[in-house]
Amino acid sequence: MSFRKFSSDADVIAFARQHSDLFTADEALKVEEIGDGNINFVYRVSGASASLIIKQALPYVRIIGEGWPLSQDRVRIEAEALQLEAKYCPDLVPRVYSYDAEQCAIVMEDIGAFANLRVVMVQRQKLPLLAEHLGRFLADTLFYTSDLYLDTYEKKSLVKGFINPDLCKISEELFFWDPYCDHERNSINELIRADAEQLWQDTALKLEVARLKAKFLNQAEALLHGDLHSGSVFANESGTKIIDPEFAYVGPAGFDIGSIIGNYLLNVAGQANQAGDHAERSDYQQWLLAGICTLWNTFEQGFRQHMQTETRDPSLQLEEYADWYLCELLQDSLGYAGTEIIRRTIGLAHVMDLESIEDAERRADSERLALKLGQVLIKHRATINSIDQVIDMLRQQLHCR
Amino acid sequence: MSFRKFSSDADVIAFARQHSDLFTADEALKVEEIGDGNINFVYRVSGASASLIIKQALPYVRIIGEGWPLSQDRVRIEAEALQLEAKYCPDLVPRVYSYDAEQCAIVMEDIGAFANLRVVMVQRQKLPLLAEHLGRFLADTLFYTSDLYLDTYEKKSLVKGFINPDLCKISEELFFWDPYCDHERNSINELIRADAEQLWQDTALKLEVARLKAKFLNQAEALLHGDLHSGSVFANESGTKIIDPEFAYVGPAGFDIGSIIGNYLLNVAGQANQAGDHAERSDYQQWLLAGICTLWNTFEQGFRQHMQTETRDPSLQLEEYADWYLCELLQDSLGYAGTEIIRRTIGLAHVMDLESIEDAERRADSERLALKLGQVLIKHRATINSIDQVIDMLRQQLHCR
Ligand SMILES: Nc1ncnc2c1ncn2[C@@H]1O[C@H](COP(=O)(O)OP(=O)(O)O)[C@@H](O)[C@H]1O
Ligand SMILES: Nc1ncnc2c1ncn2[C@@H]1O[C@H](COP(=O)(O)OP(=O)(O)O)[C@@H](O)[C@H]1O
Repeated sequence: MSFRKFSSDADVIAFARQHSDLFTADEALKVEEIGDGNINFVYRVSGASASLIIKQALPYVRIIGEGWPLSQDRVRIEAEALQLEAKYCPDLVPRVYSYDAEQCAIVMEDIGAFANLRVVMVQRQKLPLLAEHLGRFLADTLFYTSDLYLDTYEKKSLVKGFINPDLCKISEELFFWDPYCDHERNSINELIRADAEQLWQDTALKLEVARLKAKFLNQAEALLHGDLHSGSVFANESGTKIIDPEFAYVGPAGFDIGSIIGNYLLNVAGQANQAGDHAERSDYQQWLLAGICTLWNTFEQGFRQHMQTETRDPSLQLEEYADWYLCELLQDSLGYAGTEIIRRTIGLAHVMDLESIEDAERRADSERLALKLGQVLIKHRATINSIDQVIDMLRQQLHCR
Repeated sequence: MSFRKFSSDADVIAFARQHSDLFTADEALKVEEIGDGNINFVYRVSGASASLIIKQALPYVRIIGEGWPLSQDRVRIEAEALQLEAKYCPDLVPRVYSYDAEQCAIVMEDIGAFANLRVVMVQRQKLPLLAEHLGRFLADTLFYTSDLYLDTYEKKSLVKGFINPDLCKISEELFFWDPYCDHERNSINELIRADAEQLWQDTALKLEVARLKAKFLNQAEALLHGDLHSGSVFANESGTKIIDPEFAYVGPAGFDIGSIIGNYLLNVAGQANQAGDHAERSDYQQWLLAGICTLWNTFEQGFRQHMQTETRDPSLQLEEYADWYLCELLQDSLGYAGTEIIRRTIGLAHVMDLESIEDAERRADSERLALKLGQVLIKHRATINSIDQVIDMLRQQLHCR
């Protein structure tokens, strides 16, 4: 049997039964196509007692069609990344019940009890454990897949196993090229076109973006999730689940950290002009900034602890090296946060945090704030050596408007 | 037929005839085992009209035996690296006539007309084209195998094809670990043991070495030769050949540049106490320093020219990025030069440039100078932004003794 797209509910149900023992033989099952993603097909199969999710990758991008072919190897990469993440943070990812290489499909835990973080943030819900969970996820996945922990053979085979050019190419272009020139793929609110044009003239900014891109291209530091935006995080009061690592590859650790920090800040920018009470929105902005602080501190403590006790390579055990490394990583993270913010504001793929502001003028104001935050992070990151400094810098940007 | 070591001259001759058309059918051929290397077997097959070289890799290190197994994949890597280098600098590498995967053997051009650069330097011969040739080799091989030139697919498949953990592990340990602690593999002249011990206490140095090691482990910047010491270079008045890229892998560009600069400086340190006329030795030291300058300048001009006219990735075409990149690369190169100098002085594998100084006190003096140069390069590289500054710094170290 060779690959074919699931063609009916019965098809999906048969596959679900075959690849899990969640359901009883006589249990009536129903199927829903729930994918709100742009790339793959996602089905929920549910019965009276249980439910599961099936994600299938077609040889092209779902919303575009055959005109944008995309390697199905991405689903192997997603399955293997989920399994590796589960080794270190089993509570923070959906369990993979089965991966079928031929059907390019993953059968996994239904995390329907958790809400999409982007929606959570637009609705200004405060989740008490979120930032800690994200910090721990990053500390564990990034440490245990780096040269600090793996030996040369393990590390190099990790690099080889996660070579992912189709998906990397998308990020290389959307993050580091399109937004810095008048690219046809960009989507720009006409009201901020002048701001975008100014950015395209900013050589100092473009130099820093080139440096960040070069690291993205060639720094094989740790296995990244690769697409850690708010839409890849599902969370509620008591837990957090991180899904969709199909962009996983061995790259610069700061990219994952920066992606999620960038998404916090996109919401900060959005809250400046979202509907609702001003005080409540300001308060939520402060909650988000405090969250960035908690996220980094949790990450830093966890990662430092790992470095102190589990670094296998004796030449990387020096405490001074840990200090230097974590400072450099913070700066990288801020740079990548800036590129995420900018590309989500004037690039191809926008976010609800800004797009849901109905009034175009008010949206433009938030977009300008987003561009400003992005530029400051990218250009001033080299002067930063603590997360408190970062938060101060961000607060200043919010105040001086 | 599966792998077997060549067991007789007739064996080698039959293989040579089968894998090249250099010889006529009735030409009498003879075989010499000429390998002075430590790792593989090298044979010269010669007749009246022509000669060629056969290099065979066994599944272990030649001088150690089966106690140190080593992947035979290294010979595929060497053959492919030679072929890739030949694409860009055909005059600077031996031609590969044939590569036989099963016999783990490369059949290649005999470069017997060229002399081992280490011997050339110990004898204080001045070769007029050497530094330019090395600079061009580095500019071409490093540029055309980097993300500046290759697209994502080409680059990532290069990384995959040159994953070389057995050989990388050797460098990781011998360059970046052993010399910085009291490792049993080290070989230290008793007269400089105190100097070595002082170095083991130098945290600032060890921090910098950790940073250089981290880049060696994870910066997949360009395809490196990986073992570019004087013994891998063969040269005469009119030409230069670079052999033995079995350590090739995609790593930080500065490692190759630094390795060869480090070898120039090992000879500079040796000349301080070699036999022969003092003025002649000082003059040769100045010739070597001028050579480092020419090497870097040739490299820099060539690489910059490539960057300006052949960089395919639009986000890396900025002139300011080229400036930044080349400055960073110079600093990296100096750091790696320092690690090469130090590991050749107190690590496992020493060099004739120092070892041939018979008097132990005089050898110790040169070894101390070598350690000093190595330390200064590693610790002060961040303050350097031109090759002239480097040469000034090195001259100062020579004068202030
Ligand atoms: N394990 C899961 N449990 C519940 N819902 C899921 C699960 N995986 C995906 N989904 C739903 O499907 C949507 C698309 O999934 P995602 O993995 O992001 O697909 P894509 O790769 O196409 O972006 C998610 O936003 C989420 O609503
Ligand atoms: N193409 C060649 N032409 C002439 N001599 C060669 C050639 N290749 C190797 N040799 C000789 O064999 C020696 C060992 O070769 P090398 O490639 O350095 O082996 P190893 O990998 O064992 O270090 C060289 O130092 C050189 O003297």
